[in-house]
Amino acid sequence: MELQANNPALKSWIEYGPDTDFPIQNLPFGTGRKQGQSARAFTAIGDFVVDLAVLFEAGMLADCGLPAENLFERATLNDFISLGRGVGRKVRNRLSALLSADHAELRDNEALRSKAISAMSEVEMLMPVQVGDYTDFYSSIEHATNVGTMFRDPDNALLPNWKWLPVGYHGRASSIVVSGTPVHRPLGQTKAPDAAEPSFGPSQRVDFELEMAFITCTPNALGQRIKPADAEEHIFGMVLFNDWSARDMQVWEYVPLGPFLAKNFASSVSPWIVTLDALEPFRVAGPEQNPAPMPYLKTEGAHNFDIHLEVGIAPQGSEEKTVCRSNFKYMYWSMAQQLAHHTVNGCNINAGDMYGSGTISGPTPDSYGSMLEIAWKGTKPVPMPDGSERKFILDNDTVIMRGYCKNDQVRIGFGEVRSQLLPATDY
Amino acid sequence: MELQANNPALKSWIEYGPDTDFPIQNLPFGTGRKQGQSARAFTAIGDFVVDLAVLFEAGMLADCGLPAENLFERATLNDFISLGRGVGRKVRNRLSALLSADHAELRDNEALRSKAISAMSEVEMLMPVQVGDYTDFYSSIEHATNVGTMFRDPDNALLPNWKWLPVGYHGRASSIVVSGTPVHRPLGQTKAPDAAEPSFGPSQRVDFELEMAFITCTPNALGQRIKPADAEEHIFGMVLFNDWSARDMQVWEYVPLGPFLAKNFASSVSPWIVTLDALEPFRVAGPEQNPAPMPYLKTEGAHNFDIHLEVGIAPQGSEEKTVCRSNFKYMYWSMAQQLAHHTVNGCNINAGDMYGSGTISGPTPDSYGSMLEIAWKGTKPVPMPDGSERKFILDNDTVIMRGYCKNDQVRIGFGEVRSQLLPATDY
Repeated sequence: MELQANNPALKSWIEYGPDTDFPIQNLPFGTGRKQGQSARAFTAIGDFVVDLAVLFEAGMLADCGLPAENLFERATLNDFISLGRGVGRKVRNRLSALLSADHAELRDNEALRSKAISAMSEVEMLMPVQVGDYTDFYSSIEHATNVGTMFRDPDNALLPNWKWLPVGYHGRASSIVVSGTPVHRPLGQTKAPDAAEPSFGPSQRVDFELEMAFITCTPNALGQRIKPADAEEHIFGMVLFNDWSARDMQVWEYVPLGPFLAKNFASSVSPWIVTLDALEPFRVAGPEQNPAPMPYLKTEGAHNFDIHLEVGIAPQGSEEKTVCRSNFKYMYWSMAQQLAHHTVNGCNINAGDMYGSGTISGPTPDSYGSMLEIAWKGTKPVPMPDGSERKFILDNDTVIMRGYCKNDQVRIGFGEVRSQLLPATDY
Repeated sequence: MELQANNPALKSWIEYGPDTDFPIQNLPFGTGRKQGQSARAFTAIGDFVVDLAVLFEAGMLADCGLPAENLFERATLNDFISLGRGVGRKVRNRLSALLSADHAELRDNEALRSKAISAMSEVEMLMPVQVGDYTDFYSSIEHATNVGTMFRDPDNALLPNWKWLPVGYHGRASSIVVSGTPVHRPLGQTKAPDAAEPSFGPSQRVDFELEMAFITCTPNALGQRIKPADAEEHIFGMVLFNDWSARDMQVWEYVPLGPFLAKNFASSVSPWIVTLDALEPFRVAGPEQNPAPMPYLKTEGAHNFDIHLEVGIAPQGSEEKTVCRSNFKYMYWSMAQQLAHHTVNGCNINAGDMYGSGTISGPTPDSYGSMLEIAWKGTKPVPMPDGSERKFILDNDTVIMRGYCKNDQVRIGFGEVRSQLLPATDY
């Protein structure tokens, strides 16, 4: 199906500036709640949101392959996205038409318009999906190399399996929260290298990890794998993802079965799922892969995406400092390869499952995606605007991640994921 | 509240033999489907099941703290168990009364009785809960010691963190299936120690892991930990758990982030959730813990349970051979400690989450809980009744796990988890 909604020439009768994350060519999906209303699905355009439940009720989303029941009158998008990318594409194309400058149907229906359209600031955004399973990959070669250099051997920074398969592990779905939700500094066991015994208390090394996550839609059956050529049809879209990490807890707990409490206290996501369709113009080839991927991981064509990413830290009462600028295109393993690997053993996926990229570090120190790397294990503290410095995240700091794609015709943004680290409780 | 349902003197008007897993003192909860009916909740007694949706509809479960809506007319128990152990206890006590020999209400109502009670063989059992998150622990000291001895250093078999915290990791919830569901041998990458490169194909070392899993009910809020003294009130009950594992894939993939495809192709569970209440008479003290657990892991009293476990392998067309007899009481870390550890960083739990114990090995070779240990890395093949031998599980073998508690008054069983390993597909 053609992606009419991607036409860069389109203009909307809703006004917005050139730097908005949400031009008519984006039209992401999210869920939220206006005061006094039940939770429901929205799309975003400029500084406004459009209530999809209202449009459906008014019959404006007919012929999109939706069932009779109003799936947009729910707190999560799971049922909608389980219909697959095809239905999502039709709904997005239809929204694009309804919001186009020359389209009168919604524009000139003042009663419906005032019911369907609200200022974004009036809506409290919610977790867009109920996450059934959450997997985190480790697919940035720069990040894996930096960590291997710091903690193992600079001459053999990458482990032997790294270039053969997209290393990944399962994470905790229940503690994934939407942007704006504060996160408490975790308590746990840590052990200093020279200490005889571990001790218990608040983590002293809370870090962000700059990631993106994709969200699957069409399920596969247990025992049936998804081939790399088909993988993207199972991916509805992407969000920004802050994979909060407690480095000191991680070092003590993670051998031999991987990270656990160092990660599962919280991960934060941006509220708008930007569709893979909207990202189409920003498709780029990934890094050369050597050794060549095994046949079950082999893809043709370009499967990475050129998405600018940045992270800011705002100490309480102080202005924000940008500490990192990276790009999703640095990923060594593509999402298609990650999903093909994940399911090659027959593992089944569901609509609403989330898959983190792993920390997205670029080739230069200003593009590293975690404080662990930026401050290089605490040896290069980062000066802040208020005169303080940061090796890791301090209590009451707010961490903000942003992402956008841009070419000479259009800018497609993700909004932001913003979360404040509160002090530990119950110590 | 008193556990009237545990009274060992109780007899039922439903007849069963002395070796049943499901006397009136058990009354576990499960879900299933009778031909031509919708999925719903049942309890088990002897060789019969009792339809809880029918009893609710007939007003026989009044005054148990249940809402007006019939929560038993659903395919999973999540909504019911989210009401907490208190409500579960009232329902179980009420079922016990209704099924007691001297209680006429259901016994003498022939119409209702014939509607509510069916032969167990007439019902296809389903996954009793939708698993939100699945965590697997590694809490048997014998298993961890055996694995450490085989793959690392016999003199330092346990890693330094093992006796300080219950090591655990996140697993895949989507691929947990109910007893009777066949499982395909997984495809994936493996690398022989002397090979220059990994290769791709069906795993040659598919293994079972004899585990039990507990299921949580009452949630905690993100950021609020569950203390060990309160932990058991968040645990609704337990099931048998076969954590299928592909040992050759695991060895290649698991460093540094833990097991992934070696585990997530399937785990199999028994269909009946035996309540922690029903297990009360079998509470025993756990092994002595040295070093003493940190305060956040410290418990008073007995928190282990004396549950006999056994595993059989039935080659296709041949009789079953018992390959292991173990006991849940060997667990070094109790469920209360596991849950207190899991949430000490503020990680939130939900009703229906599942927590595997890790492989339950006893102190002697005939009590080891995996083929890896029983056949000691392939060096001690196990002879089978049909003349073949087993180092790991072969195509078309059926693995059966059973569990029960027994004292001189009562026997409380778990039924079984039975699953056949089918050949790899799509190679």
